[in-house]
Amino acid sequence: MAPVTNARVMFAARPEDYPIPGKTTVYDTSETIDLENAPLNGGILVKVLVVSVDPYMRGRMRGPEHKSYIPAFQLGQPMNGGGIGVVLRSEIAEVAVGSHVRGFLSYQQYVVAPSMAGLEVIEKDPKLNWSVYLGAAGMPGRTAFMGWREYARAKKGEVAFISTGAGPVGSMVIQIAKEDGLKVIASAGTDEKVKFMKEIGADVAFNYKTTSVREVLEKEGPVDIYWDNVGGETLDAAMEFANMHARFIECGQISGYNTGPKPMKNPTHMVFKCLSFHGFLVGFLEPKYKAAFTAEVVPKVASGEYKYTEDLTRGLDKLGHALLALLEGTNTGKGVVVVADE
Amino acid sequence: MAPVTNARVMFAARPEDYPIPGKTTVYDTSETIDLENAPLNGGILVKVLVVSVDPYMRGRMRGPEHKSYIPAFQLGQPMNGGGIGVVLRSEIAEVAVGSHVRGFLSYQQYVVAPSMAGLEVIEKDPKLNWSVYLGAAGMPGRTAFMGWREYARAKKGEVAFISTGAGPVGSMVIQIAKEDGLKVIASAGTDEKVKFMKEIGADVAFNYKTTSVREVLEKEGPVDIYWDNVGGETLDAAMEFANMHARFIECGQISGYNTGPKPMKNPTHMVFKCLSFHGFLVGFLEPKYKAAFTAEVVPKVASGEYKYTEDLTRGLDKLGHALLALLEGTNTGKGVVVVADE
Repeated sequence: MAPVTNARVMFAARPEDYPIPGKTTVYDTSETIDLENAPLNGGILVKVLVVSVDPYMRGRMRGPEHKSYIPAFQLGQPMNGGGIGVVLRSEIAEVAVGSHVRGFLSYQQYVVAPSMAGLEVIEKDPKLNWSVYLGAAGMPGRTAFMGWREYARAKKGEVAFISTGAGPVGSMVIQIAKEDGLKVIASAGTDEKVKFMKEIGADVAFNYKTTSVREVLEKEGPVDIYWDNVGGETLDAAMEFANMHARFIECGQISGYNTGPKPMKNPTHMVFKCLSFHGFLVGFLEPKYKAAFTAEVVPKVASGEYKYTEDLTRGLDKLGHALLALLEGTNTGKGVVVVADE
Repeated sequence: MAPVTNARVMFAARPEDYPIPGKTTVYDTSETIDLENAPLNGGILVKVLVVSVDPYMRGRMRGPEHKSYIPAFQLGQPMNGGGIGVVLRSEIAEVAVGSHVRGFLSYQQYVVAPSMAGLEVIEKDPKLNWSVYLGAAGMPGRTAFMGWREYARAKKGEVAFISTGAGPVGSMVIQIAKEDGLKVIASAGTDEKVKFMKEIGADVAFNYKTTSVREVLEKEGPVDIYWDNVGGETLDAAMEFANMHARFIECGQISGYNTGPKPMKNPTHMVFKCLSFHGFLVGFLEPKYKAAFTAEVVPKVASGEYKYTEDLTRGLDKLGHALLALLEGTNTGKGVVVVADE
């Protein structure tokens, strides 16, 4: 069979603030691959089905001189991240042709993976699409479940405040917090998102672009648990209206990812209110909670007990736009690019 | 017996930034007390021997409209705080005349306490002065021991950074961290304090006024445990050079007490380095650790195994100056005002 196009998304230039599709993230069709004969060197050939678009990807667009927990994207190389694909050919005995793998994949149509490092074989509940395994049944769902279980120390009747409550992490946190018997305050940036947060159980849901976070928390707080996805002024407000001994789960601070970190206005609240802050990356919690997630959470996603929204984009050529929309907060739901059908 | 003067220190005006002796803190000799006949109403009459001068007192000089964990000082009333005195008369069966009480006392020569609320009877090791029971064997010692035990999760070979390492809390933390087998970096604001920190075991001790905190930590870090007594730029530097999963024990942030809170420059480190922050007030840890402190720490203070320094000032009339010196960092050692001899 003749070689076919192997389209991919290149990291072409470092953004000054927000990434620019066509400049910093460039769709490229110059590479081809011979699907029957490309050497696998003991690995597998994967046809990529879905890839994930996540806030943390902005951090990988930094200069390589800035160290971090995850390598920077390399200029002139394809981007990579969470993805799921079907195995077309395999030289690994345990990985059958036709099985599916999830993990870190290059953002292109076909990937030759030299080993299963960073990948796992997964099976799908027939009621769910593969995209959900990048969302509620994937990394964001794990982030919500594992972070909450490790750090929340939730007590029935307490007040939880969750920012980006309509996102894939925040929406799962809302539902788990309600299961634990808490009063839930949740914020997001559009009225459509506010509506969704109410549907999934938030007691108080508001649009932070049209309603003052401080006023809501002053009225509905004090806050015992703050799930932070945004940092900045929202974090300042949560500290101002925190209860004694409140827990701050620092999952993300997206307000600082594109235009530089936002300072915390008054860190002395930490001392005088005995606040605890728990920054975390889900990878470190997975050994402890992965079995529980698979047993407890995924079935509730499949049964419809846990609700989620997705923002599906078709075609790798739109990945740059999907990422920008996510960083600007104009998308709704888990960002996934559908690269190909099965 | 004729009434005698009962001198006291009044809180006379709220400071704009630093408290001003004679203006915000005023020594007052207008009150008298009849030591033999003053009615006790079921309480005790205490002759105050020593009172404590502590950083947290600045926070009590706020306006009462600012809520906090401890009441604001009342304008026109005597200040109060930690103190020790001898019981001159008692209408409480369990409290003998001649015994000693420690706890919250009005900062004056003689106090009629209506009950033992906030007070405890204590005994003294003959090798120690009462002042030590306000320092290494008192609240600051408890703060160091209990905060470290609750939050440090110290592992042998890790690096601890301790600010105000020559103070009553920091110097105890240095010694406990060395016992736990850590490399200790410690900062203070005078060369005399640096010398003391080295004497008690700090591996790296420096004067932050003449040496860059960032440069020291870049060379000697990364930091696994930061014991924060100061906040501000020192906290920023500790975050910049923190190791993954570092613990920040937020004991105090004195840099913000007089001139307003100092912002935290880059809170995103919390997320990407999986940092945990533990703000605490020692009172909440006392039920859990008080017995261990009495059994393990006080004997080591008495035997000389734990070293400490004191800054003793004689006379309540100097209390305002002692507090200012402490807030300016020009004193050395635990600030105690000796009110009277036994």
